[in-house]
Amino acid sequence: MFSAIFDKRHPQSGARPGTLVIPKEAPTPRIYMIRYRAEDVTESDVSEVDELKAAFDEEAVTWIDIQGYGDKALIQSIGDLFKLHPLLLEDVVNIPQRPKTEAYGDQLLTVVRMVRVDGPGEIDMEQVSIVLSKNYVLTFQERYGDVLDPVRRRIRSGKGVIRQHRADFLAYAIADTIIDGYYPVLESIGEHLEELEDVVVTDPTPDLLIELNQIKNRLINLRRGIWPQREAVNTMVRGDHPAISSEVQIYLRDTYDHCVQTSEVAEMYREMVTGLMNTYLSSIANRTNEVMKVLTIMASIFIPLTFLAGIYGMNFEHMPELHVKWAYPAVWITMLGTAAGMLIYFWRKGWISFGGASTTSRKQREEG
Amino acid sequence: MFSAIFDKRHPQSGARPGTLVIPKEAPTPRIYMIRYRAEDVTESDVSEVDELKAAFDEEAVTWIDIQGYGDKALIQSIGDLFKLHPLLLEDVVNIPQRPKTEAYGDQLLTVVRMVRVDGPGEIDMEQVSIVLSKNYVLTFQERYGDVLDPVRRRIRSGKGVIRQHRADFLAYAIADTIIDGYYPVLESIGEHLEELEDVVVTDPTPDLLIELNQIKNRLINLRRGIWPQREAVNTMVRGDHPAISSEVQIYLRDTYDHCVQTSEVAEMYREMVTGLMNTYLSSIANRTNEVMKVLTIMASIFIPLTFLAGIYGMNFEHMPELHVKWAYPAVWITMLGTAAGMLIYFWRKGWISFGGASTTSRKQREEG
Amino acid sequence: MFSAIFDKRHPQSGARPGTLVIPKEAPTPRIYMIRYRAEDVTESDVSEVDELKAAFDEEAVTWIDIQGYGDKALIQSIGDLFKLHPLLLEDVVNIPQRPKTEAYGDQLLTVVRMVRVDGPGEIDMEQVSIVLSKNYVLTFQERYGDVLDPVRRRIRSGKGVIRQHRADFLAYAIADTIIDGYYPVLESIGEHLEELEDVVVTDPTPDLLIELNQIKNRLINLRRGIWPQREAVNTMVRGDHPAISSEVQIYLRDTYDHCVQTSEVAEMYREMVTGLMNTYLSSIANRTNEVMKVLTIMASIFIPLTFLAGIYGMNFEHMPELHVKWAYPAVWITMLGTAAGMLIYFWRKGWISFGGASTTSRKQREEG
Amino acid sequence: MFSAIFDKRHPQSGARPGTLVIPKEAPTPRIYMIRYRAEDVTESDVSEVDELKAAFDEEAVTWIDIQGYGDKALIQSIGDLFKLHPLLLEDVVNIPQRPKTEAYGDQLLTVVRMVRVDGPGEIDMEQVSIVLSKNYVLTFQERYGDVLDPVRRRIRSGKGVIRQHRADFLAYAIADTIIDGYYPVLESIGEHLEELEDVVVTDPTPDLLIELNQIKNRLINLRRGIWPQREAVNTMVRGDHPAISSEVQIYLRDTYDHCVQTSEVAEMYREMVTGLMNTYLSSIANRTNEVMKVLTIMASIFIPLTFLAGIYGMNFEHMPELHVKWAYPAVWITMLGTAAGMLIYFWRKGWISFGGASTTSRKQREEG
Amino acid sequence: MFSAIFDKRHPQSGARPGTLVIPKEAPTPRIYMIRYRAEDVTESDVSEVDELKAAFDEEAVTWIDIQGYGDKALIQSIGDLFKLHPLLLEDVVNIPQRPKTEAYGDQLLTVVRMVRVDGPGEIDMEQVSIVLSKNYVLTFQERYGDVLDPVRRRIRSGKGVIRQHRADFLAYAIADTIIDGYYPVLESIGEHLEELEDVVVTDPTPDLLIELNQIKNRLINLRRGIWPQREAVNTMVRGDHPAISSEVQIYLRDTYDHCVQTSEVAEMYREMVTGLMNTYLSSIANRTNEVMKVLTIMASIFIPLTFLAGIYGMNFEHMPELHVKWAYPAVWITMLGTAAGMLIYFWRKGWISFGGASTTSRKQREEG
Repeated sequence: MFSAIFDKRHPQSGARPGTLVIPKEAPTPRIYMIRYRAEDVTESDVSEVDELKAAFDEEAVTWIDIQGYGDKALIQSIGDLFKLHPLLLEDVVNIPQRPKTEAYGDQLLTVVRMVRVDGPGEIDMEQVSIVLSKNYVLTFQERYGDVLDPVRRRIRSGKGVIRQHRADFLAYAIADTIIDGYYPVLESIGEHLEELEDVVVTDPTPDLLIELNQIKNRLINLRRGIWPQREAVNTMVRGDHPAISSEVQIYLRDTYDHCVQTSEVAEMYREMVTGLMNTYLSSIANRTNEVMKVLTIMASIFIPLTFLAGIYGMNFEHMPELHVKWAYPAVWITMLGTAAGMLIYFWRKGWISFGGASTTSRKQREEG
Repeated sequence: MFSAIFDKRHPQSGARPGTLVIPKEAPTPRIYMIRYRAEDVTESDVSEVDELKAAFDEEAVTWIDIQGYGDKALIQSIGDLFKLHPLLLEDVVNIPQRPKTEAYGDQLLTVVRMVRVDGPGEIDMEQVSIVLSKNYVLTFQERYGDVLDPVRRRIRSGKGVIRQHRADFLAYAIADTIIDGYYPVLESIGEHLEELEDVVVTDPTPDLLIELNQIKNRLINLRRGIWPQREAVNTMVRGDHPAISSEVQIYLRDTYDHCVQTSEVAEMYREMVTGLMNTYLSSIANRTNEVMKVLTIMASIFIPLTFLAGIYGMNFEHMPELHVKWAYPAVWITMLGTAAGMLIYFWRKGWISFGGASTTSRKQREEG
Repeated sequence: MFSAIFDKRHPQSGARPGTLVIPKEAPTPRIYMIRYRAEDVTESDVSEVDELKAAFDEEAVTWIDIQGYGDKALIQSIGDLFKLHPLLLEDVVNIPQRPKTEAYGDQLLTVVRMVRVDGPGEIDMEQVSIVLSKNYVLTFQERYGDVLDPVRRRIRSGKGVIRQHRADFLAYAIADTIIDGYYPVLESIGEHLEELEDVVVTDPTPDLLIELNQIKNRLINLRRGIWPQREAVNTMVRGDHPAISSEVQIYLRDTYDHCVQTSEVAEMYREMVTGLMNTYLSSIANRTNEVMKVLTIMASIFIPLTFLAGIYGMNFEHMPELHVKWAYPAVWITMLGTAAGMLIYFWRKGWISFGGASTTSRKQREEG
Repeated sequence: MFSAIFDKRHPQSGARPGTLVIPKEAPTPRIYMIRYRAEDVTESDVSEVDELKAAFDEEAVTWIDIQGYGDKALIQSIGDLFKLHPLLLEDVVNIPQRPKTEAYGDQLLTVVRMVRVDGPGEIDMEQVSIVLSKNYVLTFQERYGDVLDPVRRRIRSGKGVIRQHRADFLAYAIADTIIDGYYPVLESIGEHLEELEDVVVTDPTPDLLIELNQIKNRLINLRRGIWPQREAVNTMVRGDHPAISSEVQIYLRDTYDHCVQTSEVAEMYREMVTGLMNTYLSSIANRTNEVMKVLTIMASIFIPLTFLAGIYGMNFEHMPELHVKWAYPAVWITMLGTAAGMLIYFWRKGWISFGGASTTSRKQREEG
Repeated sequence: MFSAIFDKRHPQSGARPGTLVIPKEAPTPRIYMIRYRAEDVTESDVSEVDELKAAFDEEAVTWIDIQGYGDKALIQSIGDLFKLHPLLLEDVVNIPQRPKTEAYGDQLLTVVRMVRVDGPGEIDMEQVSIVLSKNYVLTFQERYGDVLDPVRRRIRSGKGVIRQHRADFLAYAIADTIIDGYYPVLESIGEHLEELEDVVVTDPTPDLLIELNQIKNRLINLRRGIWPQREAVNTMVRGDHPAISSEVQIYLRDTYDHCVQTSEVAEMYREMVTGLMNTYLSSIANRTNEVMKVLTIMASIFIPLTFLAGIYGMNFEHMPELHVKWAYPAVWITMLGTAAGMLIYFWRKGWISFGGASTTSRKQREEG
């Protein structure tokens, strides 16, 4: 959990700015280019950086999607081709960055965090950097695979307004899709919490506490991604960068609302986890109380009886009771009476009930 | 509880903006139109969208109330008729939205959350979207039924100032009525808390903790509606949208005050629930303490006595006491003395009292 | 406690703005008018609304004090006479309002909350609405009786500067006196807390926790009045309402300081109550620990001895020890030795002390 | 503790502004005047207010230090001589005020709180009011004695820059010296906490909790002084009052840094006290756990053995074992075996260790 | 821990500003000068202050690094040579200062805190003051050794852009390297927490709690360094000091991002430590519960049996059972039956399991 919080790919401290630190295990880059105008779309896998020059053609909108950083020279040459600022390129490659929006000349860098549910209780986080210029959008992703297929489909189908707009609308569509991806993740956490809500009272095992702690840490981590994202999107909405038209800003306002909503839900879940943890603690206290009651009832009933039996086990010569005929049954009656008295006492205190364990609370309430 | 937090009606992530996602179970829309001038009122159920064109007549104020979204085409055609922005329509239909006020050209969208007490401990939440233009107000509601009948009655009766004003006053009246609806909901929670306040000490069962947790979650959820509502109303008060006159802004200032007041009460209740939960925990601790005292008193009194009885139950040949005539009564006296000593010791410690359980605390304070 | 938080006098939700909701039990209004110039003062009980027209005379300052709202027509006619805005009148009558300062034309409404200690541990809260105009001040109070007599005396005596100033100074004097009334209330809470501070360790009964919870709720409630009052006074200080001269603003700055100070003290007390509650919880834990120690010591000493006695109570034919003459005393010596060993063990652990209960802690510290 | 929070010297609520409330026990004022130019210094005890007129001489800087308020007429006549605003004089005398900086015409009032360690664990707080004008500084102190001797020595010695500057530098030097006085106070609290840090685990007595609570309350109280002081000094730095030159503002920036630093340290200590309190609670829980283990081990070992002994203490006629020769030793062996089994069980659970109490934890970790 | 929070080197309160307080143990200063242009680099140890005059040569960039303050006269003469403001010099020497950026004429002082992992669980903190002017950078360090070697290497190698830039880039490189030094420190804390995460459930010893408390205090202390650093770097980014070019501000924006990121990670770790502490507490509660269960099971099984044995150990003359032949085995059967009944009862309650301790929780869940 903890080690996931930051990656060790951070450059050596003191390295010169713009140093690209690419881990061994980074996959080889795959580049996919989509170019579209209102009338048509062309798509192609790119193997040569030179093919990307098509993006400078101002008539169409070009989306260049780079997945994987495993080739430093290639990344660098893309940077050179598009004249990316060294710090921009560093932010793109040296992950994880804090989500943010920053202007570099006529390019606008937006860093967001893409999340996906990845197996039960596992969340996969991946940084996506979106570079927006007037005619093209570059997206850089850590690994293969993403949540952006619906955007690709919308471009291909030509339905909706995406093909009528410029690159800023594309960038909006990408950011919006990534942020909408938080909903299913939060939903799966919500469902998990709902399941645990009962277990926490019926079966408070230590494992459960560990599980709650893990969910909490996951939420803390998630929130760490969501919060700065709000700010990043807000910068796009309120900023006056020439690459974003006022019409697209209205759409981005909607994305901003989703950011706020997801961050509120994450916050609320965190409060609820804290609530469950407190419930856990008091369930344990309750259980200890239950255990103690059993012990106290058993001990309180039998210890006095054992004492009585001990009395008549003594070997004094002069114990007149021993010779009385009805003494033995009398002792039994005394014992049963004592036990019954104790039972009544505990029943009045609400510690035991004769209608089954489930009605204890109701009984207690009546006895009060 | 958790699943109620967000609805699954959110569009597929990556869907194009403006996509209307209408769940299967949404009821068929019912449209009701009220048109009024200072002098007269006309009301009608609307079955054809074309009838709504009457709203463009500038002489009267028209309120078109749409309940239920179960007909996508109809909703869309209303959107087309009133030239609603695709995002506005999406916000209206794809619930739940965060409460907010947003301007779309000369239309002003205000999203609020209507609450009602729905059975014991149940709160029904429903999104109401209010679209205000110069001459008409559109309200979109998720389901049939609302809290707005008093507004309708005020329009019909012609008393008060509502018929002298324009559409902005109508929008204010609707928002104000919805926000005033929070008072009875908070009151019912307050009364519930008041009931639980005693029970938490007299009868701290696990069920009670679950109940408290549910109230807390309900308050968290409620607050999530109230907080952004403050902002939404404030935007109406401070904003300078042409559809809202400065006179109506004075009225909205009052609505804003109610928003603040309800959010403060909700916050205060949440603090009080937390207080009750802590009380619960220490009630449990107290009870365990009580249980332990009973056990300790019983064990401390009888264990030494049983030991004494055990001594004279030994079978040694040479135990002179066994043959002494008054030895048996002497042992009894010793035992009773020991028991009395223990009782006095515990009484001085304040663990037991002879004046009945209820006076324990007073006794203890004196012994202190 | 909870029900006190809001009054049920809130108008029906959806009622038209300006609706006055006057509860059955509201006392009949008593109106008292004080008019003064630098040279003289006249005072009179007012029974006819027409007498109040004297307030429009610009030469003197008029203070009209209305206590009790139990006559809707009368209140309405006062409203008409002074041309009070319907919302202003609603704020005055429909209590409780949040403290605030709001301008209505050349009138300035300030709503504050007057507090008084009302019997042990009881705080009486009452809303006072101050309407300031150029030449007159209207004060509306819920019930008879207030804390404003010192202001009346200052007007009558003519000492000090009050008679040299206009109505704004009078409004300041009233607000200041009401806010100074928080000091004795906070002081009484402070003294109560000081008393409980010891009890919480020496005698942590459940009643005490309830008491602490009540103080906490009272502080939460008090703070809810104080906080917006800060804002309300600040609006008077910083605002540029023509009715308040810059000279009086210097005086109001002082009142603002008192608001801040009382809110800080209330906040600090709340932290201290929380501290006491935690102390309570750990006192309970301590007590349970003490109880457990007694049980453990008793059981650990006597259980082994009883076992030994049990051994020689067995009826085996071949138990050579039984026939040894000094066996019985030897068993006693063994038993005393075992008991002594246990006692030494517990004493070294710091669980028991021989210098009296009060020195336990010191002993323990030495043994460490 | 609580009563120290506010003094009861507050004027009667409703008293007219500017009323001086001087408690009976206030010491008679002592006035000490220091006048200096770059070349020379004169110092004198002042008994007549008229002597103070020397302060109006513009060539020198005059520092008039008044300690004790026990003479209302004298204080009033000083106020008259220097034309102090009635509210300024009220703020000076009616203590405690919140630290603040306020301009009254060409005079600048700064209220700060001077602290000193006063015996073990005791902090003495005293309000110092600094009135700065162009040529003189008035300081008003509650009681005799202060921390300002170093400033006096610096004036006398003529080293450093103090004699080259005007009154603003003197006011800075006084405020700076008072704020530096927080360092030793915080240090002494820090050392106290360091001592308690170990005790809280080795010897968690109830007294300790009370001690921690007192330190916490002391820190809350201290913070209440420090926080507004930040603001007060900041007003001096950022404000543009003519009495403070831009050169002295650079020095005051340094004082502001110290305010921030002390407030951060106080805050940090408060967090640490909270941490220690939690540690205390879990130490108690640990101890209860230890006590329980001892009880459980003793009871679990001996209760079964006693049962066995009880079996063979029965008086049935037909108990064949009783007549077997090796039965008695066999029972002993069974008993020792059972006891050994229990011991091994507890040792494997990590509840007991044979290498001494201190190694328990290591053992447990291995058994885990 | 606590004493580390502030150093006692603070000047006597009331000392004149600019007083340098140099502790006895401060090492003798070592001065190292690096001068570079795009073409070449010269480095030299400096023993005479006069050699530093080379820094005034405007053609090259000069970095003068002073490590250790153990020579007051030397420090003072450096201050004189570079015309450092007395307060600047005080901030440099009188450590620890709060991190900050302050302008003194054309010099810009940035105080940062350098951290290094120093042995297991130990963090070494050292103040570094960076004085930036147009052509030179002075760095003052408390002790020998630092994290700045990578910067020196970059200057020497001439790769990268550092030699093409002026002194502002050098200051950026130094600050950036120091702030990047927080990553490994936070990582080591993160790894430590990850280790403790399991231990806290499997082996919650008091030592562990102390360890967690120490980590928490370390994080509090670390955060105290990081937070103001954000502000300090932000002042460099947003400020318009002539010594920092707009190009370098883009680089500093990156440094600012790192500050924010480290502060967020520190904050998140603190939350996690709090989570672990709560887990610790409930582990203890769990363990007490376990201990209680063992006791209760043992006592509940054997106490009734012992009682039965006690019955037939009584010496009454008339106890018919004693003479029945099969009475003895019947008693055994009764006893075994009782014991089995208790075991089944506890097994149904989920207190014991026959599949080994590890399956308890699963069993319990089924029995629920």
